[in-house]
Amino acid sequence: MRGFNYYERIHRAFHDHPTVFKLLLVSTLSGGGVAVAFSDSNQPKTSDEFKKKKVIVLGTGWAGVSFLKNLKSSSYDVHVVSPRNYFAFTPLLPSVTNGTVEARSIVEPVRNIVNKKPFKVDFREAECYKIDPEKRKIYCRSKHNKNLGGDEEFTMDYDLLVVAMGASSNTFNTPGVEEHAFFLKEIEDAQRIRRNIVDCYERASLPNISEEEKKRIMHFVVVGGGPTGVEYAAELHDFASQDMARLYPSVKNYLKITLLEAGDHILNMFDARITKFARSKFQRDGIDVKTGAMVTKISEKEVSAKDIKTGQNLSLPYGMVLWSTGVATRPVVQEFMKQIGQGNRRVLATDEWLRVEGCDDIYALGDCATINQRSVMEDIAAIFSRADKNKNGLLDVQEFKEVIGDICNRYPQVNIYLQKGKLKSFDDLVANAQGTNKKEIDIETFKKALSEVDSQMKNLPATAQVAAQQGAYLANCFNRMEECGKYPEGPVRVRGTGHHRFEPFRYKHFGQFAPLGGEQTAAQLPGDMVNIGYSSQWLWYSVYASKLVSWRTRYLVVGDWTRRFIFGRDSSKI
Amino acid sequence: MRGFNYYERIHRAFHDHPTVFKLLLVSTLSGGGVAVAFSDSNQPKTSDEFKKKKVIVLGTGWAGVSFLKNLKSSSYDVHVVSPRNYFAFTPLLPSVTNGTVEARSIVEPVRNIVNKKPFKVDFREAECYKIDPEKRKIYCRSKHNKNLGGDEEFTMDYDLLVVAMGASSNTFNTPGVEEHAFFLKEIEDAQRIRRNIVDCYERASLPNISEEEKKRIMHFVVVGGGPTGVEYAAELHDFASQDMARLYPSVKNYLKITLLEAGDHILNMFDARITKFARSKFQRDGIDVKTGAMVTKISEKEVSAKDIKTGQNLSLPYGMVLWSTGVATRPVVQEFMKQIGQGNRRVLATDEWLRVEGCDDIYALGDCATINQRSVMEDIAAIFSRADKNKNGLLDVQEFKEVIGDICNRYPQVNIYLQKGKLKSFDDLVANAQGTNKKEIDIETFKKALSEVDSQMKNLPATAQVAAQQGAYLANCFNRMEECGKYPEGPVRVRGTGHHRFEPFRYKHFGQFAPLGGEQTAAQLPGDMVNIGYSSQWLWYSVYASKLVSWRTRYLVVGDWTRRFIFGRDSSKI
Repeated sequence: MRGFNYYERIHRAFHDHPTVFKLLLVSTLSGGGVAVAFSDSNQPKTSDEFKKKKVIVLGTGWAGVSFLKNLKSSSYDVHVVSPRNYFAFTPLLPSVTNGTVEARSIVEPVRNIVNKKPFKVDFREAECYKIDPEKRKIYCRSKHNKNLGGDEEFTMDYDLLVVAMGASSNTFNTPGVEEHAFFLKEIEDAQRIRRNIVDCYERASLPNISEEEKKRIMHFVVVGGGPTGVEYAAELHDFASQDMARLYPSVKNYLKITLLEAGDHILNMFDARITKFARSKFQRDGIDVKTGAMVTKISEKEVSAKDIKTGQNLSLPYGMVLWSTGVATRPVVQEFMKQIGQGNRRVLATDEWLRVEGCDDIYALGDCATINQRSVMEDIAAIFSRADKNKNGLLDVQEFKEVIGDICNRYPQVNIYLQKGKLKSFDDLVANAQGTNKKEIDIETFKKALSEVDSQMKNLPATAQVAAQQGAYLANCFNRMEECGKYPEGPVRVRGTGHHRFEPFRYKHFGQFAPLGGEQTAAQLPGDMVNIGYSSQWLWYSVYASKLVSWRTRYLVVGDWTRRFIFGRDSSKI
Repeated sequence: MRGFNYYERIHRAFHDHPTVFKLLLVSTLSGGGVAVAFSDSNQPKTSDEFKKKKVIVLGTGWAGVSFLKNLKSSSYDVHVVSPRNYFAFTPLLPSVTNGTVEARSIVEPVRNIVNKKPFKVDFREAECYKIDPEKRKIYCRSKHNKNLGGDEEFTMDYDLLVVAMGASSNTFNTPGVEEHAFFLKEIEDAQRIRRNIVDCYERASLPNISEEEKKRIMHFVVVGGGPTGVEYAAELHDFASQDMARLYPSVKNYLKITLLEAGDHILNMFDARITKFARSKFQRDGIDVKTGAMVTKISEKEVSAKDIKTGQNLSLPYGMVLWSTGVATRPVVQEFMKQIGQGNRRVLATDEWLRVEGCDDIYALGDCATINQRSVMEDIAAIFSRADKNKNGLLDVQEFKEVIGDICNRYPQVNIYLQKGKLKSFDDLVANAQGTNKKEIDIETFKKALSEVDSQMKNLPATAQVAAQQGAYLANCFNRMEECGKYPEGPVRVRGTGHHRFEPFRYKHFGQFAPLGGEQTAAQLPGDMVNIGYSSQWLWYSVYASKLVSWRTRYLVVGDWTRRFIFGRDSSKI
């Protein structure tokens, strides 16, 4: 039997030294034009967990996993609680709805991620349903089959809590949405959508279905013209025209896709060139885009909408409707907000260091929170007084120059204001404020000059990019907590003394893609660059392949794309 | 924009001429040692469907799809009705339960299969819930979401009906099986099992779970020591030891797998060498095999069994139990049997030409039916009288030799009897019967000589191999229905005149595999050859890859195997 061990040896070699294969794979992927970084470390575990601070991470989405991946300090006792035991690469969710990519190809088990850490990370598959900031306790519930014990509740204590639970879909309390619409936030959503698309085709293929009913069943309505809605509509059109038309020749002509957007444009966070291109591409594809259409109700077989301009009521009989109009706060977070005095807010607020306002030991990041950027006006007196070194009640050029760096650092809206050319220098500031050439200004003039600065503040979008950067930022803070405690490196404390421990979080926008179907993608790159077409599609392939969380998922997704390219998509209802 | 068309052209070229890729792929697969046949034809559709006989095929499993793939005659109006719009390559189902292979990799849309036919085949995703042989009508029900119209019922008329609906799992009316056990017959079953295995591990990893409860949760019980149960247990063991042990280090030691078999041996349809090897392999792996254990009841957390020999009662607290003890007749088939006077039978009976007994225009094949081989004793007088050409009431050597071919053809049990060396010639027959050297025998002696022949009759096993051969056989009959009507080529009609239209169905056994885990497979090949170990595993890979229904599934399954080899299996609960 000795000879047989050869096979086993190769097999083990692959498992223990997977780098060989990874090197093979990187050549394929880097051909796409993007370098891929690889950082699986496998250092021995440390065991001195004495007196370590207990950190609980809630959630295993972009924010939570990015935090875990970037956490390097072994001076914490880390626990992760999430109802999903995997991380999902959500930007590819629309591709899962039609089988361009398989659901399993874009997920990675959390345990695979945390097991690579050089220190122990504990994972619990459960949902946190209550946070008690007073007792520093979270309440969790796991859901399993009855024979495995059914619902199990337990509590956990924490020293530091990282809330990264994401958000739910925002229905704006529109009647019927919860009951009848599909959402696209979770893996299960995408799988459900995929099965239901096939269902519509199968149903329409049955005998005794009237023409009118066939039209209704084959009418796919998408509510929300954001990137998700647009990409879903584009993917659905590709699926229908490239695969389903061949498989269901008798019903293909009944297909209709309608995209409803309440605003004036689809993809309104993108450049106007992209919006325009998307609109005309969709027109050529026969996707009916209705802007200025606000959905008022969804019943079992009909979407009711209102034309915002004309006030006219629309009625759209549908077979399937996708609701994709943004995010809302989860009930557990709402409850938590009430407890900490944020009950009147819409979203959980943190400061610029991602600490939940009103809680010293709770951090929140990703879609479940918003950074409440401190306004300049709130601190204007303190800023002026700190800048006015000679305390003469007037600010001169020299004094201003000395503090502008700190001000821009602490109040990025000032920086944006300056960058936009609205305020090039102190001279402009003074000139703007009083129209004279006087070289000194008093506090009232200073206030007046900066009065529009705070309007530059914008909430960050609820994207994977933001969440991932926040996770990495927070992990880095945790890594250097002790060091920066001793030697703070943040901006000057305007109202207190000394410096903040860390630099505040700053989002760096690397651009955004909007896949429009037919191997055409619009890309909005940093510096207002816009690229549309096949080349962007390849850039999209490259970037997404490189950003995927593990080599396994990279292998799978690239395999899926190849499979789709050669064989098309599968219409089996599983 | 012209330049961009290049991409599209390649893409289309792949779709329209997939042979290029197929040639690439065949080199990979044929490396496994097995030639793969390819027969996608794309001939133009004919349209003269005037007066064609309407054939309805019920089911899209092995039998139904094999029938469809082999049907070449365009002289039928073919309709397919099945609750599943895909064909599943069921021998790989156990591999799906742990993610060695993905569910989607082993399914092929029926529409993909039938669209390749040179004539139109209509598919309806619905379940046939009643067959009315008098009115030649089937009653169908489709199940869809309420907004797609909910349950839709319709009827269809047929001229010829091909029943290939498969079977359900046989619970032997054991209490609690339906409620608590998992089955492994459908794709959904395998997916459910996969999620539940992960559930058990996650549940056992939660805090506050007692030692005893952890042991219970991590106890996997398999009922039935046939190929499915054994392969499932082996796959589960591989999954647990190769992947889950690494991901769940804290609970891995609680794992226990128990295999319960009521008979004396596991894999009792295999050669004794295989049975022995499997038993010792399982022993080394720590899989507890209990033979002679009959399960009497399954409660929510406990399997009760009885040791058949000692009468002792066993009680096994379990986390998950798989029930895999053979097949049972589906209710719709039971109902149909009552209508046609087969109500007292256990399984739907057909004649050797796969025609349902008592129905001229209904055929049944695969797991839902059994061939009721006509017994020699039933026809003994007619056989004797036909053989006794000179009508002297005695059969001599010459007379016997003339009819033996026809007899063996019509009654294969005679052939088996002869092959087994029990009856070499007419001399032996006579000698056996009366112990003399007399060269002529009378009917009573003839009867006595053949009295044991019918005991050679065995029902065919409920395997994919049998179903596929039956489907191909029946399609071939349909292809040559007209031709063989004029020039019958079957055996002599013993009780009537002339010949039967077709040769009766004969099963040809090509061997069977029993994967035992750890890249070791036992193979029982024709001619009592047995091969066990790594080489059989590669044979298994090659045969299964070549037998897969389409190039897409081949690409996917080979990709899955590669992925598993490099990255292991995924533990995400999706």
